[in-house]
Amino acid sequence: MTAPTTSATVGDLFARHRETLQRALEATRERVYWSRYPESPSPRVYGETAAGQGRAAFEAYLDAPFPLQQPGTRDLVGEERSPYGIDLGVRYPHPDVDLLLQAARAAMPAWRDAGPDGRAGVCLEILDRINKRSFELAYAVMHTTGQAFVMAFQAGGAHAQDRGLEAVAYAYAEMTRHPYEATWEKPQGKRGPLRMAKRFTVVPRGVALVVGCNTFPTWNAYPGLFASLVTGNPVVVKPHPRAVLPLAITVLIAREVLADAGFDPNLVTLAAEAPGEGLASVLATRPEVRIVDFTGSTAYGDWLEANARQALVFTEKAGVNAVVIDSTDDFAGMTANIAFSLSLYSGQMCTTPQNILIPRAGIDAGPDGHKSFDEVTAGIAAAVGKLLADDARAVELTGGITGEAVLERLDRAHQVGDVVLGSRSLAHPEFPDAVARTPLVVRLDAAEEDTYAQEWFGPISFVIATDSTGHSVEILRDTITRHGALTASVYSTEEKVLQAAEEAALDAGVHLSCNLTGGVFVNQSAAFSDFHATGANPAANACLTDAAYVAGRFRIVQSRRPVPAAEPAPAS
Amino acid sequence: MTAPTTSATVGDLFARHRETLQRALEATRERVYWSRYPESPSPRVYGETAAGQGRAAFEAYLDAPFPLQQPGTRDLVGEERSPYGIDLGVRYPHPDVDLLLQAARAAMPAWRDAGPDGRAGVCLEILDRINKRSFELAYAVMHTTGQAFVMAFQAGGAHAQDRGLEAVAYAYAEMTRHPYEATWEKPQGKRGPLRMAKRFTVVPRGVALVVGCNTFPTWNAYPGLFASLVTGNPVVVKPHPRAVLPLAITVLIAREVLADAGFDPNLVTLAAEAPGEGLASVLATRPEVRIVDFTGSTAYGDWLEANARQALVFTEKAGVNAVVIDSTDDFAGMTANIAFSLSLYSGQMCTTPQNILIPRAGIDAGPDGHKSFDEVTAGIAAAVGKLLADDARAVELTGGITGEAVLERLDRAHQVGDVVLGSRSLAHPEFPDAVARTPLVVRLDAAEEDTYAQEWFGPISFVIATDSTGHSVEILRDTITRHGALTASVYSTEEKVLQAAEEAALDAGVHLSCNLTGGVFVNQSAAFSDFHATGANPAANACLTDAAYVAGRFRIVQSRRPVPAAEPAPAS
Repeated sequence: MTAPTTSATVGDLFARHRETLQRALEATRERVYWSRYPESPSPRVYGETAAGQGRAAFEAYLDAPFPLQQPGTRDLVGEERSPYGIDLGVRYPHPDVDLLLQAARAAMPAWRDAGPDGRAGVCLEILDRINKRSFELAYAVMHTTGQAFVMAFQAGGAHAQDRGLEAVAYAYAEMTRHPYEATWEKPQGKRGPLRMAKRFTVVPRGVALVVGCNTFPTWNAYPGLFASLVTGNPVVVKPHPRAVLPLAITVLIAREVLADAGFDPNLVTLAAEAPGEGLASVLATRPEVRIVDFTGSTAYGDWLEANARQALVFTEKAGVNAVVIDSTDDFAGMTANIAFSLSLYSGQMCTTPQNILIPRAGIDAGPDGHKSFDEVTAGIAAAVGKLLADDARAVELTGGITGEAVLERLDRAHQVGDVVLGSRSLAHPEFPDAVARTPLVVRLDAAEEDTYAQEWFGPISFVIATDSTGHSVEILRDTITRHGALTASVYSTEEKVLQAAEEAALDAGVHLSCNLTGGVFVNQSAAFSDFHATGANPAANACLTDAAYVAGRFRIVQSRRPVPAAEPAPAS
Repeated sequence: MTAPTTSATVGDLFARHRETLQRALEATRERVYWSRYPESPSPRVYGETAAGQGRAAFEAYLDAPFPLQQPGTRDLVGEERSPYGIDLGVRYPHPDVDLLLQAARAAMPAWRDAGPDGRAGVCLEILDRINKRSFELAYAVMHTTGQAFVMAFQAGGAHAQDRGLEAVAYAYAEMTRHPYEATWEKPQGKRGPLRMAKRFTVVPRGVALVVGCNTFPTWNAYPGLFASLVTGNPVVVKPHPRAVLPLAITVLIAREVLADAGFDPNLVTLAAEAPGEGLASVLATRPEVRIVDFTGSTAYGDWLEANARQALVFTEKAGVNAVVIDSTDDFAGMTANIAFSLSLYSGQMCTTPQNILIPRAGIDAGPDGHKSFDEVTAGIAAAVGKLLADDARAVELTGGITGEAVLERLDRAHQVGDVVLGSRSLAHPEFPDAVARTPLVVRLDAAEEDTYAQEWFGPISFVIATDSTGHSVEILRDTITRHGALTASVYSTEEKVLQAAEEAALDAGVHLSCNLTGGVFVNQSAAFSDFHATGANPAANACLTDAAYVAGRFRIVQSRRPVPAAEPAPAS
């Protein structure tokens, strides 16, 4: 289905990005390694001046009104404080909802008429301009989420951009799987055939709402934002009040590209909120809003699913990620890999392992012989200790803590069982007021399900003594079936144990990683190859990104006209 | 994604039907004319003995327990009475819901493990065996719905089978758009690359419920049934109490094929209900049920959407189909075409036009000159009268009336405005107790929206006097946006009027037919070319069949393992 594009400019954009789109489409079909946007912040990749310019651009936003002109601004709001101890002081437009939605809806017809090619060209241009401003965005992500700079650059920059492109590619594939026009000719025996010229037009659902999260404002927002936009829907972005800046910059860039291409910039707007306003709930239940994408708490995700009934609601919520340790022939590699997974961004990832299930009789560690339960847990603790020994280097891995709630939870978690490894504060050499912590590891017994069968978001993990690996696998299957998870992993040298874990993962509907001992970590997923979430357990009702994530964001409307048998179908 | 199939038998089925599947996949991509199952009941197509054998098979079911063995049968139920005046007297298993769902769930793992190819082979074999029993099914459809025999054979047989195959093709395309296995290799500069072997498995959502309707028990059930089954979900079929037999035969055939292929036949079960039991509501809200497909009233469809919250719910509900008459150069063709659309199955189709919008100043009828409003409506009435003049021939088009509710509505409709054409009873030469009626046409004014902005299901249409064609188009846009529709059509010799109607149809999210004067009727849609419903207006939240209809019925679960850089990915 390739609708005619509306202007030379739009056609130019599609031509400019056609090869990228084709390569992205191939990548989604092959699921081998591919990435469009370089993840290295090296000057050799992004240029000698990019880092400095990005930092300057970030700093220019501080203590000032954000330069976003959009309709219906009532006043300015903003209370962001960096986990590194800086008040950002950026003030954002605070919209009148009626006027904002009216503006969004008014922009729809021309965007619909631009067709899949026209919209894809614009979306890819937006991603390209975002990519060029990756440093500016990385500083914005760093100082709103607490991620260390390199992680903010990668996860908040290139990886988020790849996930956005992936969503565009999936949506484009679904929009173009049918021809835009077809001639139907049904034989009628001796009479002449029936002939109809048919046209199939992609139409949007309505206004799309993206509700951003605190920890991964861009990575978790881009798939929904771009999937909705490329399928014809105007997008209202409601950022988390503590992580507005990365999405405000994103909206600013999107509006620039839209305007440059001759479209109404109100196809993408920002909905920053006043403290305690609950703007997401107001927007999500408006009749104009027909799509909602949300990442955050189970309680609020469930509320959206129950109340935003007029909309298609995509949610990513809490879960209880699990690790089954059965045996290994690389004890050092295993403990180092787990230690990294626990430490990265202080465990403030929806993919961080929480429940580490180990037989109480210990494990076979191959060349290292038998390891008792306590030796395994001590091995993990030692690996964390080694990884984070030097504060200045440690903070480049852990980053900072996003908010008070995490600190309170961390305090509470010290009380729920025997502490194998206590959490300690890290001193940041550059930011003395930064709040940074190392991971806590607490020992529990398999019977203490009341404690571990819920999410403890933050640098909190449990080593859980089970009766056997079979018991561990059953706990994985059962807790994830009931409470959800985004990740699971297993360590074993026995093929039959790996297969049992795979079977449990299929039953529980969770992605599984086996025997990670090197440079791949369970909490990382690669766009175009790894699916993120499944939609098959309570941690998420959708997957980033598959066909189900994009196909419902648009509809197909058909028009048919008779064609005389002797004539070709009319061109139009 | 092509998972290994589990047995030689299953592999044989896939091989047997591979070409059909490939052709169906092509047809969904091209959307030109294609049909797998012949719609002609001619002995030259189905064989000299097929009709007689089908009739005998149908008659053998009457006044007897239906030969379906499935778990948890409590007792037998069934009160079907043919609109042609015959009590069927078939008694069906009445299930214990706990035992039925338990049996359905137990059948899942092996079905999941059969993979897309294995399941597609079985589903296509089921469709083939259904096709071979088209006469038996046609009699069952005729005597439960009231459709005339040929229509029952076509819409209830070949066309329903085509729609089932279409759903299998769409689902197969989505299940296989990713590889089953892939090796991911990420370069790491001077260090060796990271390599992971990944496997992507299609997993089902859970038990699927299909809630059948009275008027098109097979046509409306097959898409959901086959889409859910081929994606790995066991299917419980809850037929309408007045149209059990066609779906009972379908379930019987599906279970035979499943058992022959070595699968648990409880992957497809029948849930017939006792009078007033409300079994659909019991089943739809069970936690095991994760998909619901429903065709029927807006009230119950809305109830399902609000209450079956644990499930993905697909609904097709009521609407107000509209026709805009602006001008024509073939007045006789137009009125004949409309007359046929109103008469077919006595207007008991979700696609029958209801609101015929005509400027009160009349229309330009080309070679026939100007036609006043009254001349247009008289032309339609005369065309109906001519079409249905002979009772014996008329009943082969109208069939019978499905139930008391339609007759009561028809009586009421005679009172709401000036009767342009009254409904009359038709005498059926073969079935003296048949209840058959011709269409009623009532004149309304555009201001009488309270009457026409709701569905009057049955042989009831309104000719509505509007201020102008522009006004007609606005009424089409507005009533369909608010109340939904499955079909819309327009007659005009002016390209700009056709374009305005197309624009209104895009806005309202309804499929449009233009200038139908020959052998294509607005209430018919062709599988593999025409979409049925859009999901973009209140008459349905889904479309038969597009990617959105199938993609959410399964999930993808991934497993990944490191591969040493020197070795190829492990075979498994």
